[in-house]
Amino acid sequence: MSESALLLELIDALRCMPGIGKKSAQRITYHLLQRNRDGARRLSRSLLEAMDKIGHCDRCRTFSEERICTLCQSNKRDRTLLCVVESPADIYIVEEAGFRGSYFVLMGHLSPLDGIGPDDLGLNKLEQLLTEGEIEEVILATSTTVEGEATAHFIGEMVHKKNLRVSRIAHGVPMGGDLEFVDSSTMSHAIAGRREL
Amino acid sequence: MSESALLLELIDALRCMPGIGKKSAQRITYHLLQRNRDGARRLSRSLLEAMDKIGHCDRCRTFSEERICTLCQSNKRDRTLLCVVESPADIYIVEEAGFRGSYFVLMGHLSPLDGIGPDDLGLNKLEQLLTEGEIEEVILATSTTVEGEATAHFIGEMVHKKNLRVSRIAHGVPMGGDLEFVDSSTMSHAIAGRREL
Repeated sequence: MSESALLLELIDALRCMPGIGKKSAQRITYHLLQRNRDGARRLSRSLLEAMDKIGHCDRCRTFSEERICTLCQSNKRDRTLLCVVESPADIYIVEEAGFRGSYFVLMGHLSPLDGIGPDDLGLNKLEQLLTEGEIEEVILATSTTVEGEATAHFIGEMVHKKNLRVSRIAHGVPMGGDLEFVDSSTMSHAIAGRREL
Repeated sequence: MSESALLLELIDALRCMPGIGKKSAQRITYHLLQRNRDGARRLSRSLLEAMDKIGHCDRCRTFSEERICTLCQSNKRDRTLLCVVESPADIYIVEEAGFRGSYFVLMGHLSPLDGIGPDDLGLNKLEQLLTEGEIEEVILATSTTVEGEATAHFIGEMVHKKNLRVSRIAHGVPMGGDLEFVDSSTMSHAIAGRREL
């Protein structure tokens, strides 16, 4: 073939990204070579720096380039409230909802079949945090999948043993949509969780 | 926000790739940090090497890390046939169709509105190749857009002046499809270009 070895290697290397197949990788390669070499060089530097320097926050386990992340360092957060999420990306969503407590990031969910147990989710570290005495309520914001629910249940038991309050985010009908498109499982949760007006 | 500066910088840098918006960039960043740091490091190296070392073949203008690309160096190609394509990716498609002549890559098409004229497509270099005397027929395999057709027409005139044969790839009904889905412009080309059996 006419392709240079470096070009083929780049096409192959690009496939480490989720959602990028061979065709997309080719298109990206040609685009970068033809139109945006500077952008590609910047991406190269940025990738290397991020992979080498970003680790996990010692306190909440989110991605951080410092030992303690900026959020955990901040003195503007309510330390009595701890929100448990599955991934660093979830923090975004909770932040946008106006939450101003602190976080704990599991970096996954319990999944015995994949060999992911409590230790892999840092639950020993979470238990230690709960023992420190600052936290009064734990909000479980794991996802609403079977694994997410199981993980929430497991952590719920743990928090109960410490005699702290623990809550699960509400399940129900999402805002701004037509009821027509709501699935029956969501609707049954919405009815079961109804609130008096 | 809780995001580290390096993380935000990586999300932004990823957007140099076509088809990657903010959400995809975020998803890719978290995936690489969480699951494939080695893949990301390899991609970083590969990007830098490709951008720094891949230039254009002196003869056919395709991407090449050497002065003359492997295809132009090969002595197994028919040098009397020259296929003109718009981009290096097109070579792939023509190769897969079994063509074994040589190529010339325009790296674009004529587009006066965008300020892309004959010089930007290396047509002076193409003219020089035609003068060398080895080429007997030029096959125009530019795309079937308005710009591609105009480019083919322009190069066609040029080749005619050199008293060489020039041809355009056939337009017609694609193979393996139902006639139902063929547009009228394609069908009228297919009828005009019909061949006696």
